[in-house]
Amino acid sequence: MPYYLKIKKLDIKTGQSNIVLLNREEARRYGIKAGDKVKITWPDHSVIAEANTSQKRVKLGQIGFYKDIWEKMKISPNTIAEIEFIERAKSIKAIKKRLLGKKLNYEDFYQIFSDIAKGILTRTETTYFVASSFIRDYDDQELYFMTKAMAETGEMLKFPHKMVVDKHSVGGLAGNRTTMIVIPIIAALGLVIPKNSSRAITSPAGTSDTMEVLAPVSFSAKEIKKIVKKVGGCLVWGGGLNLAPADDKILKVSYPLSMEPYDKMLVSIMAKKVASGVTHLVIDMPVGETTKIPNMKIAKELERKFKYIARKFNIKIKVIMIQTEDPIGMGVGPALEARDVLRVLQQKDNYPADLANKAIHLAGELLELAGKAKKGQGAAIAWKTLESGAAWKKMQEILKAQGGKYDIDPNDIVLAAHKKYYNAPKSGRIIFTDNKGINTIARILGAPADQLAGIYLNKEFDDHVKKGERLFTLYARTKERIKLADKGLEKINIFKIGK
Amino acid sequence: MPYYLKIKKLDIKTGQSNIVLLNREEARRYGIKAGDKVKITWPDHSVIAEANTSQKRVKLGQIGFYKDIWEKMKISPNTIAEIEFIERAKSIKAIKKRLLGKKLNYEDFYQIFSDIAKGILTRTETTYFVASSFIRDYDDQELYFMTKAMAETGEMLKFPHKMVVDKHSVGGLAGNRTTMIVIPIIAALGLVIPKNSSRAITSPAGTSDTMEVLAPVSFSAKEIKKIVKKVGGCLVWGGGLNLAPADDKILKVSYPLSMEPYDKMLVSIMAKKVASGVTHLVIDMPVGETTKIPNMKIAKELERKFKYIARKFNIKIKVIMIQTEDPIGMGVGPALEARDVLRVLQQKDNYPADLANKAIHLAGELLELAGKAKKGQGAAIAWKTLESGAAWKKMQEILKAQGGKYDIDPNDIVLAAHKKYYNAPKSGRIIFTDNKGINTIARILGAPADQLAGIYLNKEFDDHVKKGERLFTLYARTKERIKLADKGLEKINIFKIGK
Repeated sequence: MPYYLKIKKLDIKTGQSNIVLLNREEARRYGIKAGDKVKITWPDHSVIAEANTSQKRVKLGQIGFYKDIWEKMKISPNTIAEIEFIERAKSIKAIKKRLLGKKLNYEDFYQIFSDIAKGILTRTETTYFVASSFIRDYDDQELYFMTKAMAETGEMLKFPHKMVVDKHSVGGLAGNRTTMIVIPIIAALGLVIPKNSSRAITSPAGTSDTMEVLAPVSFSAKEIKKIVKKVGGCLVWGGGLNLAPADDKILKVSYPLSMEPYDKMLVSIMAKKVASGVTHLVIDMPVGETTKIPNMKIAKELERKFKYIARKFNIKIKVIMIQTEDPIGMGVGPALEARDVLRVLQQKDNYPADLANKAIHLAGELLELAGKAKKGQGAAIAWKTLESGAAWKKMQEILKAQGGKYDIDPNDIVLAAHKKYYNAPKSGRIIFTDNKGINTIARILGAPADQLAGIYLNKEFDDHVKKGERLFTLYARTKERIKLADKGLEKINIFKIGK
Repeated sequence: MPYYLKIKKLDIKTGQSNIVLLNREEARRYGIKAGDKVKITWPDHSVIAEANTSQKRVKLGQIGFYKDIWEKMKISPNTIAEIEFIERAKSIKAIKKRLLGKKLNYEDFYQIFSDIAKGILTRTETTYFVASSFIRDYDDQELYFMTKAMAETGEMLKFPHKMVVDKHSVGGLAGNRTTMIVIPIIAALGLVIPKNSSRAITSPAGTSDTMEVLAPVSFSAKEIKKIVKKVGGCLVWGGGLNLAPADDKILKVSYPLSMEPYDKMLVSIMAKKVASGVTHLVIDMPVGETTKIPNMKIAKELERKFKYIARKFNIKIKVIMIQTEDPIGMGVGPALEARDVLRVLQQKDNYPADLANKAIHLAGELLELAGKAKKGQGAAIAWKTLESGAAWKKMQEILKAQGGKYDIDPNDIVLAAHKKYYNAPKSGRIIFTDNKGINTIARILGAPADQLAGIYLNKEFDDHVKKGERLFTLYARTKERIKLADKGLEKINIFKIGK
């Protein structure tokens, strides 16, 4: 059903040839919404354009033409144009399609993610998309289309190197800072590993939070390429890079339900790898009741899907599933974890062996996957690279390239001003470590917002302790926070001591 | 997992004993959201409360206690309380439940609608609820629970009368203003009929818009009861009454998809009837391709559901399904429709017979349903009431009670200043009337925002016309609007003339 509006010339150039502006109220009356396609016809002319809406720039009864359109065409004053609605924003159509139970194709996902990324879809409309995931599970092909579309609707980092390797931890385990050790080992051996990480969302520290204790982590794509060209690797924050930008907006509307479907997690990880140009990828997926992946059955099915998607993008992948709930390393909180990392890289006497071992294991797997080590020999090569100081040397290069402190001793790392020791109430063996409880206490102490706050675990799982021996240490910026954690520790038993 | 915050006394009383205030950022960190239940424990005390959040009123590390709580209990300065998350806002749990494909019970719907009405659920969360409707159709029992819960989470109008009758049009037909004739007929016969109507959303006039040409329509529940006590009926706007308030908010998030499932329409109509205390109800459901209900199959299934729900609430119901696409009455637009109504009520020579006939039919059915007429005799009684002037006399009482003009001649109704006639291009019989086209042109002319604008149909379906004879008349506030409609009429053929 056509309708009619008077053309108003707007003195603005948008750089796009196909956008017109409707009065919001008028658009509402006719059921047109931003993003809908309309056909506009006036004497001797016709254009197809996307409708945008505005409350003030055009009045009721008007249609705004940007300079991009009216400069090219003669439009007499008071020209009345016929407006014909052609189609609903494609992404709305696609979302409806899935709500009605139908399968989506690549174009559907592309439209949806593109409109989410550009802000054409509102929060409400984005929510309908997320909700449509519950209608039924995505099949493999849909997961592939989603991954591809999510990557391609954002920036694509392209490195000039044939091989770009990466390592990704699914997360959920306290103090799992292997990334900052794996990257310098791998880069020291000549592979290109431009690592971008996230900040903590629900945990007490993300890799970016920890790296930021030592060096800046926010860089543009161009700066990252320069750093990587120079030193072969980096440890930067991915959040500023516009990689798979729809993902963040989808995450925001998913938050109120506190349900992140595994499929969504998979797509969001893989889309970012595709956008980062990764060719070889090791996924570290801790499995355990208190981590993100509760059991091996779910882990195995996720592994299958990871492999399927990776194959579609010619990414060589290895998924490492280790059943554990024991925190890795001794420190929990950005500064404390950075100290652990430095102790490992500098091979100090008091370095946390579990952190070093896990990093070596992951680095070894990645070396084998990338053909830099024969089967079964990757870990040995990684170990030698760490022991010889080559990894620390490489880390210093990375720190320098990112503008950070590159000659720092782990003992010089500043920790929060207020400290409190907790000692063993009895002698025995540590038979259980409460991973979730440790995260909770670390957050109560102020991490990650307070970079210097957190917990240092003086003991770990299976250790024998004597009554009165130091178990762990709290660090916080204020006495208040220590008190709050004290209260918490009346209920939370970080270490269970048995016989 | 408990955590710990310092109690801050807030100098505010909420009137509710169980609300505490958390810092928004702190709440986010611990995954608590507004509406979640928390248990708060401090020396010798414990309360269970609902968490609200604020960005500024309480700082990180604090929990705000309103006066309602701390006045009753001794709280020493600097008291630290333990906060334990008990359960996610019940409505979120219910929404998740339905997203996962499970059936909802009455309590679930009550929580959802109550939280939507109170604004505890955000727009995003409300969207998840609406989206969950697509997981699978609601069964009859769920429809009943929904209706009951939607009614009971808003104001319930209670009239002291044993019998409260009503008439409802599902809508979609141009100029269908029978309500303003049915109500005075019924009230003149001594039945209580407190009618509340909506304003136009997508049509050129709703009953409230049309009634407002003659009298004020916005009243409080108390005022309505007074009016009804005095004159036995009213014609008021329901939007200000807080009846089934969740409905409006749900409608808002449904809008972007432009899909209103029939089930939702049914629940929203019936919930408002339940909230209005209706005991006898006639539903006017025009069926036709260009109305809301496209065919008889859908109409019959809806009738079945209407009857099921009505029975559950002891409402006597009759659903009248008439297959038609012909507009009722001659005027389209608030003032023009008000003029039609007055012509019928005052039995002027030029009154639109189809409007009178349909009103008499509906009034007759309602009289029979309410036991005021024997089977088959309702229409005759209604007709007599109209013809004798009793209906107009009752309408005058209603207009007076609502503070309107009660001695107005239909010809004194002011119409928009700019007028244009359209004449028949050839002789013949009118073989098609474009109902949707008429609505579009009336809206182009400015209705319903411009109350005085619209179309007057000088002819109707099946009339014989001579070439040059007047077909219809346009009314608009500005010449501009007439021009826009002119343009529209180059494409839209309101009347098709055959042989």
